[in-house]
Amino acid sequence: MVKSDIFFMNEAIRLSIKSVKDGGGPFGAVIVKNGKIIAKASNSVTKDNDPTAHAEVNALRLAAKKIKNFDLNGCIVYSSCEPCPMCLAAIYWAKIDRLFFANTKTDAKKIGFDDFFIYDELELPYEKRKMKVTQMMRNKALEAFRNWDNKEDKIQY
Amino acid sequence: MVKSDIFFMNEAIRLSIKSVKDGGGPFGAVIVKNGKIIAKASNSVTKDNDPTAHAEVNALRLAAKKIKNFDLNGCIVYSSCEPCPMCLAAIYWAKIDRLFFANTKTDAKKIGFDDFFIYDELELPYEKRKMKVTQMMRNKALEAFRNWDNKEDKIQY
Repeated sequence: MVKSDIFFMNEAIRLSIKSVKDGGGPFGAVIVKNGKIIAKASNSVTKDNDPTAHAEVNALRLAAKKIKNFDLNGCIVYSSCEPCPMCLAAIYWAKIDRLFFANTKTDAKKIGFDDFFIYDELELPYEKRKMKVTQMMRNKALEAFRNWDNKEDKIQY
Repeated sequence: MVKSDIFFMNEAIRLSIKSVKDGGGPFGAVIVKNGKIIAKASNSVTKDNDPTAHAEVNALRLAAKKIKNFDLNGCIVYSSCEPCPMCLAAIYWAKIDRLFFANTKTDAKKIGFDDFFIYDELELPYEKRKMKVTQMMRNKALEAFRNWDNKEDKIQY
Protein backbone atom coordinates (compact mmCIF):
# COMPACT_ATOMS: atom_id res chain seq x y z
CA MET A 1 0.00 0.00 0.00
CA VAL A 2 1.48 3.32 -1.07
CA LYS A 3 0.40 6.95 -0.93
CA SER A 4 -1.45 6.79 -4.24
CA ASP A 5 -3.49 3.82 -2.98
CA ILE A 6 -4.78 6.05 -0.19
CA PHE A 7 -5.62 8.77 -2.69
CA PHE A 8 -7.60 6.39 -4.93
CA MET A 9 -9.37 4.69 -2.03
CA ASN A 10 -10.33 8.08 -0.65
CA GLU A 11 -12.04 8.76 -3.98
CA ALA A 12 -13.94 5.44 -3.85
CA ILE A 13 -15.05 6.26 -0.30
CA ARG A 14 -16.08 9.79 -1.31
CA LEU A 15 -18.27 8.29 -4.05
CA SER A 16 -19.88 5.87 -1.58
CA ILE A 17 -20.79 8.70 0.80
CA LYS A 18 -22.06 10.89 -2.03
CA SER A 19 -24.12 7.99 -3.35
CA VAL A 20 -26.10 7.68 -0.11
CA LYS A 21 -26.82 11.40 -0.26
CA ASP A 22 -27.95 11.09 -3.90
CA GLY A 23 -30.30 8.16 -3.22
CA GLY A 24 -28.08 5.29 -4.38
CA GLY A 25 -26.52 2.41 -2.45
CA PRO A 26 -23.58 3.09 -0.08
CA PHE A 27 -20.83 1.82 -2.37
CA GLY A 28 -18.20 3.42 -4.62
CA ALA A 29 -15.44 2.09 -6.87
CA VAL A 30 -12.59 3.52 -8.87
CA ILE A 31 -10.51 1.91 -11.62
CA VAL A 32 -6.93 3.00 -12.16
CA LYS A 33 -4.62 2.33 -15.07
CA ASN A 34 -1.02 3.59 -15.25
CA GLY A 35 -1.56 5.73 -12.18
CA LYS A 36 -4.66 7.47 -13.54
CA ILE A 37 -8.35 7.04 -12.76
CA ILE A 38 -10.06 5.79 -15.92
CA ALA A 39 -13.48 5.11 -14.41
CA LYS A 40 -15.43 5.78 -11.25
CA ALA A 41 -18.91 4.78 -10.24
CA SER A 42 -21.29 4.22 -7.38
CA ASN A 43 -24.06 1.73 -6.84
CA SER A 44 -27.12 2.56 -8.97
CA VAL A 45 -29.32 -0.54 -8.56
CA THR A 46 -32.40 1.40 -7.47
CA LYS A 47 -31.72 4.55 -9.51
CA ASP A 48 -31.22 2.65 -12.77
CA ASN A 49 -33.54 -0.29 -12.03
CA ASP A 50 -30.62 -2.60 -12.69
CA PRO A 51 -29.93 -5.44 -10.24
CA THR A 52 -26.39 -5.74 -11.64
CA ALA A 53 -25.50 -2.06 -11.18
CA HIS A 54 -23.16 -2.46 -8.23
CA ALA A 55 -20.34 0.10 -7.98
CA GLU A 56 -17.67 -2.31 -9.19
CA VAL A 57 -19.71 -3.62 -12.15
CA ASN A 58 -20.60 -0.06 -13.15
CA ALA A 59 -16.94 0.98 -12.93
CA LEU A 60 -15.74 -2.05 -14.93
CA ARG A 61 -18.28 -1.35 -17.65
CA LEU A 62 -17.26 2.31 -17.84
CA ALA A 63 -13.53 1.47 -17.86
CA ALA A 64 -13.91 -1.07 -20.65
CA LYS A 65 -15.93 1.42 -22.73
CA LYS A 66 -13.30 4.08 -22.07
CA ILE A 67 -10.33 2.02 -23.27
CA LYS A 68 -12.49 0.23 -25.87
CA ASN A 69 -11.40 -3.17 -24.62
CA PHE A 70 -13.19 -5.86 -22.61
CA ASP A 71 -9.80 -6.87 -21.18
CA LEU A 72 -8.80 -4.63 -18.27
CA ASN A 73 -5.46 -6.29 -17.74
CA GLY A 74 -3.11 -3.76 -16.09
CA CYS A 75 -5.90 -2.08 -14.13
CA ILE A 76 -6.44 -1.84 -10.37
CA VAL A 77 -9.84 -1.70 -8.65
CA TYR A 78 -10.37 0.35 -5.47
CA SER A 79 -13.72 -0.48 -3.91
CA SER A 80 -15.21 1.08 -0.79
CA CYS A 81 -16.43 -2.40 0.20
CA GLU A 82 -15.36 -6.00 -0.22
CA PRO A 83 -16.93 -7.12 -3.52
CA CYS A 84 -19.92 -9.47 -3.59
CA PRO A 85 -19.52 -12.69 -5.63
CA MET A 86 -21.01 -11.03 -8.72
CA CYS A 87 -18.53 -8.14 -8.63
CA LEU A 88 -15.59 -10.31 -7.68
CA ALA A 89 -16.26 -12.70 -10.57
CA ALA A 90 -16.68 -9.70 -12.89
CA ILE A 91 -13.29 -8.44 -11.69
CA TYR A 92 -11.75 -11.80 -12.58
CA TRP A 93 -13.43 -11.90 -16.02
CA ALA A 94 -12.08 -8.41 -16.69
CA LYS A 95 -8.56 -9.65 -15.84
CA ILE A 96 -7.99 -6.91 -13.26
CA ASP A 97 -4.47 -7.01 -11.74
CA ARG A 98 -5.17 -6.08 -8.18
CA LEU A 99 -8.00 -5.23 -5.80
CA PHE A 100 -8.16 -2.94 -2.77
CA PHE A 101 -11.26 -2.75 -0.59
CA ALA A 102 -12.22 -0.94 2.64
CA ASN A 103 -15.45 -2.09 4.36
CA THR A 104 -15.89 -5.84 4.75
CA LYS A 105 -18.79 -8.08 3.75
CA THR A 106 -19.51 -8.43 7.48
CA ASP A 107 -19.93 -4.65 7.67
CA ALA A 108 -22.22 -4.84 4.64
CA LYS A 109 -24.32 -7.58 6.19
CA LYS A 110 -24.85 -5.46 9.31
CA ILE A 111 -26.61 -2.80 7.22
CA GLY A 112 -28.72 -5.26 5.25
CA PHE A 113 -26.61 -6.39 2.26
CA ASP A 114 -26.21 -10.11 2.66
CA ASP A 115 -23.40 -11.26 0.39
CA PHE A 116 -22.86 -14.28 2.64
CA PHE A 117 -26.16 -15.76 1.53
CA ILE A 118 -24.91 -15.83 -2.06
CA TYR A 119 -21.39 -16.99 -1.16
CA ASP A 120 -22.95 -19.86 0.79
CA GLU A 121 -25.40 -20.76 -1.98
CA LEU A 122 -22.58 -20.92 -4.55
CA GLU A 123 -20.85 -23.60 -2.49
CA LEU A 124 -23.90 -25.84 -2.19
CA PRO A 125 -24.86 -28.54 -4.69
CA TYR A 126 -27.85 -27.37 -6.73
CA GLU A 127 -30.30 -29.70 -5.00
CA LYS A 128 -29.57 -28.06 -1.65
CA ARG A 129 -30.01 -24.47 -2.76
CA LYS A 130 -32.86 -22.12 -1.94
CA MET A 131 -33.42 -21.40 -5.65
CA LYS A 132 -34.59 -24.34 -7.72
CA VAL A 133 -32.14 -25.16 -10.54
CA THR A 134 -32.83 -27.67 -13.32
CA GLN A 135 -30.66 -28.86 -16.18
CA MET A 136 -32.25 -29.77 -19.51
CA MET A 137 -31.60 -30.08 -23.27
CA ARG A 138 -27.80 -30.20 -23.09
CA ASN A 139 -27.51 -32.20 -26.30
CA LYS A 140 -29.32 -29.55 -28.27
CA ALA A 141 -27.42 -26.67 -26.66
CA LEU A 142 -24.02 -28.18 -27.46
CA GLU A 143 -24.50 -27.09 -31.09
CA ALA A 144 -23.51 -23.51 -30.19
CA PHE A 145 -20.37 -24.76 -28.46
CA ARG A 146 -19.38 -26.93 -31.42
CA ASN A 147 -19.91 -23.99 -33.76
CA TRP A 148 -17.79 -21.76 -31.52
CA ASP A 149 -15.06 -24.37 -31.32
CA ASN A 150 -14.98 -24.68 -35.11
CA LYS A 151 -15.18 -20.96 -35.86
CA GLU A 152 -11.86 -19.73 -37.16
CA ASP A 153 -12.36 -15.97 -36.95
CA LYS A 154 -13.76 -15.86 -33.41
CA ILE A 155 -12.71 -13.16 -30.93
CA GLN A 156 -11.74 -15.01 -27.80
CA TYR A 157 -12.19 -13.51 -24.36
CA MET B 1 -40.01 -29.50 -16.49
CA VAL B 2 -43.07 -28.88 -18.63
CA LYS B 3 -43.70 -28.22 -22.32
CA SER B 4 -43.28 -24.47 -21.96
CA ASP B 5 -39.85 -24.97 -20.37
CA ILE B 6 -38.76 -26.71 -23.56
CA PHE B 7 -40.15 -23.85 -25.63
CA PHE B 8 -38.27 -21.21 -23.61
CA MET B 9 -35.02 -23.18 -23.48
CA ASN B 10 -35.23 -23.69 -27.24
CA GLU B 11 -35.29 -19.92 -27.58
CA ALA B 12 -32.23 -19.50 -25.31
CA ILE B 13 -30.40 -22.12 -27.39
CA ARG B 14 -31.45 -20.45 -30.65
CA LEU B 15 -29.96 -17.18 -29.36
CA SER B 16 -26.70 -18.91 -28.42
CA ILE B 17 -26.33 -20.39 -31.91
CA LYS B 18 -27.24 -17.11 -33.58
CA SER B 19 -24.75 -15.28 -31.37
CA VAL B 20 -21.82 -17.35 -32.66
CA LYS B 21 -22.91 -16.59 -36.21
CA ASP B 22 -23.13 -12.86 -35.38
CA GLY B 23 -19.68 -12.69 -33.77
CA GLY B 24 -20.67 -12.89 -30.09
CA GLY B 25 -20.02 -15.55 -27.48
CA PRO B 26 -21.90 -18.90 -27.65
CA PHE B 27 -24.44 -18.16 -24.92
CA GLY B 28 -28.09 -17.14 -24.83
CA ALA B 29 -30.61 -16.44 -22.06
CA VAL B 30 -34.31 -15.77 -21.80
CA ILE B 31 -36.31 -14.34 -18.88
CA VAL B 32 -39.93 -15.32 -18.44
CA LYS B 33 -42.60 -13.78 -16.24
CA ASN B 34 -46.18 -15.06 -16.04
CA GLY B 35 -45.59 -17.38 -18.97
CA LYS B 36 -44.25 -14.67 -21.28
CA ILE B 37 -40.73 -13.80 -22.41
CA ILE B 38 -39.91 -10.33 -21.07
CA ALA B 39 -36.24 -10.27 -22.08
CA LYS B 40 -33.80 -12.18 -24.22
CA ALA B 41 -30.12 -11.67 -24.82
CA SER B 42 -26.89 -13.25 -25.92
CA ASN B 43 -23.32 -12.75 -24.82
CA SER B 44 -21.91 -9.45 -26.10
CA VAL B 45 -18.60 -9.13 -24.22
CA THR B 46 -16.52 -8.60 -27.34
CA LYS B 47 -19.17 -6.79 -29.37
CA ASP B 48 -19.93 -4.25 -26.64
CA ASN B 49 -16.46 -4.17 -25.04
CA ASP B 50 -18.10 -5.05 -21.74
CA PRO B 51 -16.56 -7.81 -19.60
CA THR B 52 -19.85 -8.13 -17.68
CA ALA B 53 -22.04 -8.58 -20.80
CA HIS B 54 -22.74 -12.29 -20.38
CA ALA B 55 -26.09 -13.49 -21.73
CA GLU B 56 -27.69 -13.79 -18.29
CA VAL B 57 -26.48 -10.37 -17.08
CA ASN B 58 -27.66 -8.77 -20.33
CA ALA B 59 -31.05 -10.45 -20.01
CA LEU B 60 -31.45 -9.45 -16.33
CA ARG B 61 -30.65 -5.83 -17.16
CA LEU B 62 -33.15 -5.80 -20.01
CA ALA B 63 -35.86 -7.48 -17.94
CA ALA B 64 -35.44 -5.04 -15.05
CA LYS B 65 -35.60 -2.07 -17.46
CA LYS B 66 -38.70 -3.57 -19.07
CA ILE B 67 -40.68 -3.97 -15.85
CA LYS B 68 -39.06 -0.87 -14.33
CA ASN B 69 -38.02 -2.76 -11.22
CA PHE B 70 -34.64 -4.04 -9.99
CA ASP B 71 -36.50 -6.87 -8.25
CA LEU B 72 -37.26 -9.72 -10.67
CA ASN B 73 -39.10 -11.80 -8.13
CA GLY B 74 -41.56 -14.05 -9.99
CA CYS B 75 -39.29 -14.44 -13.01
CA ILE B 76 -37.60 -17.56 -14.40
CA VAL B 77 -34.23 -17.62 -16.20
CA TYR B 78 -33.55 -20.04 -19.06
CA SER B 79 -29.86 -20.06 -19.92
CA SER B 80 -28.20 -22.06 -22.69
CA CYS B 81 -25.32 -22.75 -20.26
CA GLU B 82 -24.78 -23.16 -16.54
CA PRO B 83 -24.18 -19.63 -15.23
CA CYS B 84 -20.72 -18.48 -14.16
CA PRO B 85 -20.38 -17.11 -10.59
CA MET B 86 -20.97 -13.55 -11.80
CA CYS B 87 -24.23 -14.44 -13.53
CA LEU B 88 -25.40 -16.77 -10.79
CA ALA B 89 -24.84 -14.11 -8.13
CA ALA B 90 -26.62 -11.57 -10.36
CA ILE B 91 -29.54 -14.00 -10.59
CA TYR B 92 -29.67 -14.17 -6.79
CA TRP B 93 -29.47 -10.38 -6.39
CA ALA B 94 -32.34 -10.04 -8.87
CA LYS B 95 -34.41 -12.45 -6.73
CA ILE B 96 -35.14 -14.76 -9.65
CA ASP B 97 -37.47 -17.67 -8.70
CA ARG B 98 -36.02 -20.46 -10.73
CA LEU B 99 -33.22 -21.29 -13.14
CA PHE B 100 -32.98 -23.71 -16.04
CA PHE B 101 -29.73 -24.31 -17.88
CA ALA B 102 -28.56 -26.62 -20.70
CA ASN B 103 -24.78 -26.88 -21.28
CA THR B 104 -22.65 -27.37 -18.18
CA LYS B 105 -19.63 -25.42 -16.94
CA THR B 106 -17.55 -28.48 -17.87
CA ASP B 107 -18.78 -28.12 -21.46
CA ALA B 108 -17.89 -24.42 -21.30
CA LYS B 109 -14.40 -25.15 -20.00
CA LYS B 110 -13.77 -27.53 -22.92
CA ILE B 111 -14.22 -24.66 -25.39
CA GLY B 112 -12.12 -22.19 -23.41
CA PHE B 113 -14.43 -20.53 -20.86
CA ASP B 114 -13.00 -21.40 -17.49
CA ASP B 115 -15.64 -20.68 -14.85
CA PHE B 116 -13.97 -23.20 -12.55
CA PHE B 117 -11.00 -20.92 -12.11
CA ILE B 118 -13.28 -18.25 -10.66
CA TYR B 119 -15.37 -20.69 -8.59
CA ASP B 120 -12.12 -22.02 -7.10
CA GLU B 121 -10.70 -18.56 -6.43
CA LEU B 122 -13.88 -17.49 -4.60
CA GLU B 123 -13.41 -20.33 -2.12
CA LEU B 124 -9.79 -19.49 -1.28
CA PRO B 125 -8.73 -17.07 1.45
CA TYR B 126 -7.50 -13.83 -0.12
CA GLU B 127 -3.84 -14.52 0.63
CA LYS B 128 -3.95 -17.70 -1.47
CA ARG B 129 -5.56 -16.19 -4.55
CA LYS B 130 -3.94 -15.48 -7.90
CA MET B 131 -5.10 -11.84 -7.76
CA LYS B 132 -3.60 -9.75 -4.98
CA VAL B 133 -6.26 -8.36 -2.63
CA THR B 134 -5.60 -5.79 0.11
CA GLN B 135 -7.90 -4.29 2.69
CA MET B 136 -7.37 -0.69 3.82
CA MET B 137 -9.13 2.36 5.32
CA ARG B 138 -12.15 0.55 6.74
CA ASN B 139 -12.67 3.13 9.49
CA LYS B 140 -13.03 5.92 6.99
CA ALA B 141 -15.27 3.90 4.66
CA LEU B 142 -17.71 3.01 7.42
CA GLU B 143 -19.10 6.56 7.24
CA ALA B 144 -21.14 5.66 4.14
CA PHE B 145 -22.59 2.62 5.93
CA ARG B 146 -23.51 4.64 9.02
CA ASN B 147 -25.19 7.24 6.80
CA TRP B 148 -27.10 4.51 4.97
CA ASP B 149 -28.16 2.91 8.24
CA ASN B 150 -29.45 6.24 9.55
CA LYS B 151 -31.17 7.34 6.34
CA GLU B 152 -34.92 7.15 6.76
CA ASP B 153 -36.06 7.53 3.17
CA LYS B 154 -33.68 4.96 1.62
CA ILE B 155 -34.85 2.56 -1.07
CA GLN B 156 -33.71 -0.86 0.10
CA TYR B 157 -32.75 -3.59 -2.32
